[in-house]
Amino acid sequence: MGGGLSGGLDLNGRALEIADRMATNAEALRVTLRTLPGGARVIDAGIETPGGYAAGLALAEICMGGLGHVDYAPVVIGDNHWAGVRVWTDHPAVSCMASQYAGWAIQVGKYFAMGSGPLRAHARVEKELFAKLGYAETARRGVLVLETRTAPTDDVAAWVAEKAGSLEPWQLTFVVAPTASLAGGVQIAARILETGLHKMDTLGFDLKKIVSGIGAAPLPPVAKNDLRAIGRTNDCILYGGRARYTVNADDQELAELVPKIPASASKDYGTPFYDTFKRYDGDFYKIDPLLFSPAEVLRASLLES
Amino acid sequence: MGGGLSGGLDLNGRALEIADRMATNAEALRVTLRTLPGGARVIDAGIETPGGYAAGLALAEICMGGLGHVDYAPVVIGDNHWAGVRVWTDHPAVSCMASQYAGWAIQVGKYFAMGSGPLRAHARVEKELFAKLGYAETARRGVLVLETRTAPTDDVAAWVAEKAGSLEPWQLTFVVAPTASLAGGVQIAARILETGLHKMDTLGFDLKKIVSGIGAAPLPPVAKNDLRAIGRTNDCILYGGRARYTVNADDQELAELVPKIPASASKDYGTPFYDTFKRYDGDFYKIDPLLFSPAEVLRASLLES
Amino acid sequence: MGGGLSGGLDLNGRALEIADRMATNAEALRVTLRTLPGGARVIDAGIETPGGYAAGLALAEICMGGLGHVDYAPVVIGDNHWAGVRVWTDHPAVSCMASQYAGWAIQVGKYFAMGSGPLRAHARVEKELFAKLGYAETARRGVLVLETRTAPTDDVAAWVAEKAGSLEPWQLTFVVAPTASLAGGVQIAARILETGLHKMDTLGFDLKKIVSGIGAAPLPPVAKNDLRAIGRTNDCILYGGRARYTVNADDQELAELVPKIPASASKDYGTPFYDTFKRYDGDFYKIDPLLFSPAEVLRASLLES
Repeated sequence: MGGGLSGGLDLNGRALEIADRMATNAEALRVTLRTLPGGARVIDAGIETPGGYAAGLALAEICMGGLGHVDYAPVVIGDNHWAGVRVWTDHPAVSCMASQYAGWAIQVGKYFAMGSGPLRAHARVEKELFAKLGYAETARRGVLVLETRTAPTDDVAAWVAEKAGSLEPWQLTFVVAPTASLAGGVQIAARILETGLHKMDTLGFDLKKIVSGIGAAPLPPVAKNDLRAIGRTNDCILYGGRARYTVNADDQELAELVPKIPASASKDYGTPFYDTFKRYDGDFYKIDPLLFSPAEVLRASLLES
Repeated sequence: MGGGLSGGLDLNGRALEIADRMATNAEALRVTLRTLPGGARVIDAGIETPGGYAAGLALAEICMGGLGHVDYAPVVIGDNHWAGVRVWTDHPAVSCMASQYAGWAIQVGKYFAMGSGPLRAHARVEKELFAKLGYAETARRGVLVLETRTAPTDDVAAWVAEKAGSLEPWQLTFVVAPTASLAGGVQIAARILETGLHKMDTLGFDLKKIVSGIGAAPLPPVAKNDLRAIGRTNDCILYGGRARYTVNADDQELAELVPKIPASASKDYGTPFYDTFKRYDGDFYKIDPLLFSPAEVLRASLLES
Repeated sequence: MGGGLSGGLDLNGRALEIADRMATNAEALRVTLRTLPGGARVIDAGIETPGGYAAGLALAEICMGGLGHVDYAPVVIGDNHWAGVRVWTDHPAVSCMASQYAGWAIQVGKYFAMGSGPLRAHARVEKELFAKLGYAETARRGVLVLETRTAPTDDVAAWVAEKAGSLEPWQLTFVVAPTASLAGGVQIAARILETGLHKMDTLGFDLKKIVSGIGAAPLPPVAKNDLRAIGRTNDCILYGGRARYTVNADDQELAELVPKIPASASKDYGTPFYDTFKRYDGDFYKIDPLLFSPAEVLRASLLES
């Protein structure tokens, strides 16, 4: 393990193990490794290399801090049959929100990418969210995932290390893949549980009441460019994803909450995401935030023991 | 391995390995460990701890003596899509009947629970069944699974060790979870192949003719109490489970046997199991024993080589 | 690893690891091991032993040189639900065509079997194909799979070693299973991606443009004899198989190619394969070569980066 200092669940240590396995099997996974002059390690899973399905599983499990189980499984939607990705976790709030959620804006000069993965739980730049989650860990080595077509430079690594606090660049591993890549598509579809949690948080539900989750979403065909890929990957979640949560809450609370969770509860539901995005002039923040959630949600209330 | 002495398939050794992994990863699996004063180890996968999907897989594989492969897979029933559990084994008679079947009544004073798992194959208290199976093993360390809301005490451990024969309590591992828990629900749904074998045995078919089995059943939503959970878990098998067996038998024999196997062949088929149970005043032994079997059964006769 | 000398992807080394695990777990996998007088190792996964589902997965992954991921997954066809096998690879041309494809005719006196597996990439007897693939490896130990009811003899091993070049019989592992066996059925259904690649090659498409593939096919029920089994296993691919390829090609090229790939594009499509086979007097080479391909094919064009 070696990556974590605090008790906690050692998300960074778990992710580091997976990243190290990617490095060991780089040729089979078609990923490339680079060490920046300042010492940070960059694992490219789809920018200058094809990456693939194996890299996608590793990337998705890294995003979830090693506490999500990701594999391929069929998804049936009406009469259509898709190759899909199935995800389950017994640590939904921590693995999805303290790690997988792409909530850290990495902005260094002209460089911009949203950061996800367990380094967020060490950095805790998103103070409000982490206070709510009540989760923190101190990592000796941290792992950050960037959905980007531009690999991070030494400047970016230095900025991240400094913002993360008490880490040097050589203690960082970046794992990167563009939206329009095989591994990128897998890691986004694997956000099927995370999108539901994010929506429940937006609706004011206490995420710590969510005990476990299991879900699946179709795999997006790789698009011709990243903008089209944003459309396809979102469609996989919004129109093809299914999530099932086990929660500690009473029937009344659930009866009110559950109908609000699926994407269909949003006013922006109904058109391909690419069209929605265009309709709002490419401005994410104009889109109804309640759109971002699985197509179908099941829940099971849990015995109060 | 270390758990088994005799040749055999070392079900207890295999289950012990899985139990040890549960212990090593207790925090991720949300299970708790306790050593009773007399030395027996108790792994709680759902009584005073939430347990979860990971604990459920481990529990189900322990039940099958490490010779069943259990994982999550989608189950489609009509237009409904369920998260389900998929099970396959190349040792159906041994893993399902000599280990997984909950056939050992553990009754010590007021304590009562049905015992399953590989310790049964060492204890062989169920003499008739084990004579029929022709399977026995001598374990140095034994693993017993209890579906219960009450963890075993030292008295229970001492009683089990004595009845099992030539074992001390410190040589025992108990793995426990209530019916109304995530891991409990998984391990029961994972009995999809076992229920079919049990029914075939009841119908007089020689289980040693069954070469391999593969099946799946939906995961029960966790119920509010164990009685409701008995209803839901049975419904998952009886109305949602599918099993496929490869058997060494001629077409004539199979043509007679197969239509009798599915739950629908029982006179008590058709209502939710909870209602059936109530109708018989909560007395299991009044329910048609032929009800307990998968909803759908396929078979393939095998080449006589 | 130890099995490979050249750079390459070390298909033989990867397959050897899997074969060694089969040997270590022979009892659980119900396979038998034999060393021929000349030193070649033979792993029987279904001739004089039942083999099973576990042996089938190992056999299928050996066929693909350890670069295909094979597991069981449900297959839904209309209202029917099948146990199926799911396959994915990030090295489609190499794992399917340089290894899995049964392209090497092993003919020694009266002995005949088609050879598949990674030894083909060392032997490269199929000169034209390997020139096209541009793949070669030099193995210190080689693994060959034979679909046969007759285990290879010392003569066969000596012939194979000689034809393979620079190998002695003791450096060879043969893994064998008949068509009408559990493991045999699995390894054939697992050719779901390979059949599509083979068809694309026949249609003149450059296989190196295929980036990754994922597919699934139902598991054939074990037949009463190998001829019937040939029928059932082919039907699983031709009428039940689904494959999805990610390729580097433009839309125009794909629009022309894709409709030609599914089995339904063949004039011999439409009757059970056993009947087709009989209609051509049991002569494979009279059957339309364009029949051998998945029932359903999806493709995704990839960003030209």
